[in-house]
Amino acid sequence: MIMKSKPSAKSDTPVFAITMGDPAGIGPEIALKACCCYRYGKGDRPDCRSPCLAEAATRRQVGAGRRVAPTANTGYRLVIIGDLSVLRQAAKKIKISPEFNVVSDIRLSLPGKINVLDMRQITPADFTMGRVSAACGRAAYAYILKGIELATQGIAAGVITNPINKEALKAAGINYPGHTEIFADKTGVRDFTMLFYLNGVGVAHVTTHCSLRQAIDLISAERVLTHIRLLDKAMKRLGVKKPRIAVGGLNPHAGENGLFGDEEKLYIIPAVEQAVAEGYNVQGPFPPDTVFMRAFRKEFDGVVSMLHDHGFVALKSRDFEHGVNITIGLPIIRTSVGHGTAFDKAGKGTASPFSLLAAIKAAWLLYKNKKIQ
Amino acid sequence: MIMKSKPSAKSDTPVFAITMGDPAGIGPEIALKACCCYRYGKGDRPDCRSPCLAEAATRRQVGAGRRVAPTANTGYRLVIIGDLSVLRQAAKKIKISPEFNVVSDIRLSLPGKINVLDMRQITPADFTMGRVSAACGRAAYAYILKGIELATQGIAAGVITNPINKEALKAAGINYPGHTEIFADKTGVRDFTMLFYLNGVGVAHVTTHCSLRQAIDLISAERVLTHIRLLDKAMKRLGVKKPRIAVGGLNPHAGENGLFGDEEKLYIIPAVEQAVAEGYNVQGPFPPDTVFMRAFRKEFDGVVSMLHDHGFVALKSRDFEHGVNITIGLPIIRTSVGHGTAFDKAGKGTASPFSLLAAIKAAWLLYKNKKIQ
Repeated sequence: MIMKSKPSAKSDTPVFAITMGDPAGIGPEIALKACCCYRYGKGDRPDCRSPCLAEAATRRQVGAGRRVAPTANTGYRLVIIGDLSVLRQAAKKIKISPEFNVVSDIRLSLPGKINVLDMRQITPADFTMGRVSAACGRAAYAYILKGIELATQGIAAGVITNPINKEALKAAGINYPGHTEIFADKTGVRDFTMLFYLNGVGVAHVTTHCSLRQAIDLISAERVLTHIRLLDKAMKRLGVKKPRIAVGGLNPHAGENGLFGDEEKLYIIPAVEQAVAEGYNVQGPFPPDTVFMRAFRKEFDGVVSMLHDHGFVALKSRDFEHGVNITIGLPIIRTSVGHGTAFDKAGKGTASPFSLLAAIKAAWLLYKNKKIQ
Repeated sequence: MIMKSKPSAKSDTPVFAITMGDPAGIGPEIALKACCCYRYGKGDRPDCRSPCLAEAATRRQVGAGRRVAPTANTGYRLVIIGDLSVLRQAAKKIKISPEFNVVSDIRLSLPGKINVLDMRQITPADFTMGRVSAACGRAAYAYILKGIELATQGIAAGVITNPINKEALKAAGINYPGHTEIFADKTGVRDFTMLFYLNGVGVAHVTTHCSLRQAIDLISAERVLTHIRLLDKAMKRLGVKKPRIAVGGLNPHAGENGLFGDEEKLYIIPAVEQAVAEGYNVQGPFPPDTVFMRAFRKEFDGVVSMLHDHGFVALKSRDFEHGVNITIGLPIIRTSVGHGTAFDKAGKGTASPFSLLAAIKAAWLLYKNKKIQ
């Protein structure tokens, strides 16, 4: 009789660092859930349908109250950079008793365990769930710095971040508006952009955090072209061989042939033509109100969005739970959940780990295709 | 033994006129499907989950190839204003043999039949499915005029329109950009607005068909306030007793306290405050990228959208199949499918009737609550 051993991750596989995020938010809980591939015992999601690789490797029902021994995936290991005491508390809330493997060096992370690099920044006694505090801001920042350090040294294969709170950072005297700026600053990068990735569709925003009037003024052929190129590269790294890129218009109906604005004619069409000449598989500009829908229907792999509130309205209206935020242009791999700390849900045990699972999968894809530059 | 007879529509119930739309589009097919509550025999939608009342009244599986005798709902009757020959052809395509009841007066429409007011405008020999033609434009226009006439005379309870093609209208020498303008013109109305209605959520657009720059200039407290009032009234007529209205911002993050633009402070906040003072249950402005998602999660009944491509991006990204377009401010009830002629799908038998079913339901709600002014 031939025995087939189940595939298990080897200890020489890459290790991805998951930062625990703000301890008072849902980060600790979803980090645990994602690492366990914890399935909801009952309630609104009896069956996990996340496309995550890690999850795919643990296709068995884990009931509430049971001892959880997560099956490892075969390709990589995960380690949580955070506080063990906070994670223990989160485990209690979701009624699981995972086997923690506390490591001093993340290279010692084991497949099949919940690996934790215990940063000893904070304990549950030091803060209240769902509340902004300087202590939590400070702790969350420490996890991030450690993640960046490990990835920069090549010890971590990449960093997957859980949500932090801007106000908590500020209260701790740390003046960054968010993760992306910390990563850019600490890795010495100036040219970076954010890609939002949802169920296989990537969205790059030509403009983001400025007023609508400024956004219109910022639209230029060069800027559009840059985002087409960035999106194409990002989608290739995410495993799409020849990405089909759609460019959204700026104006309603993409300008309706100049009737509703001329930015399409002046800037967007020339950029698309130039990109086509360079060999990109790109089309557009298409009316903003249907271009995302068409991508969600698999007509395109990626959309270049002119405005923050074209892309984000589409993504969040479509699916708030599976979105991933990817910073493009860094020397290290960084993906993130697409949502915030969700203080209103913190400590209740009901938070969804799907966005984090998708962020793990995206980091793994970026790692596998890292030769594509 | 007590026999319970099934409820059936009486012949004195209101009759809604469904215009057949452009004969070369999907209108004839979906009109038939909606009237039959035809269920897909097999394929991608084995079970219809439309919330339509008519559909709810015909809860039985109708297989392809079977004789279809639609069970009537109890509240109203439906009549298609179109061409019988075109409808017969459409029935063949979807392999059903419905019982047509051709009427000369729509008041003779019967429950349980596919009632048709045969306008004898066109036959299948006169046009090609999926192609723009003057003949089709002319025919579609004739159905609309008849619908408006019947509703204005109080013979039809309302008009539910199937998609028309702007180019076909133009080819026929009829220079209206769309249905809404025809209805406004023929009923002598100047102040009207369009409400988009999806799965119980209503969206009113403060600006629509103009350039983005013009849209920004058009935002005023008065305009926002008018749309809050209109949306509130519309949602009440759609059956919501005390509508919870959310107002979206114009700029990313609703201006982030003035950091990303000041239109929220200058115009939107004053309008919301005024509406609250007037007793409306209204909140905002909220960031555009999450306000629609929150409404879809049942936190609000309606959203006032500043831009065409806030509301429409959200609605179409969320669900392209169940949206309904409602013209508010007309002296007659008019609802419409939320999609176009879909020439690429015409004549294939695969078109979805769900938007039309939702439009029928909306017309019925508006009729039932017509005393609300």
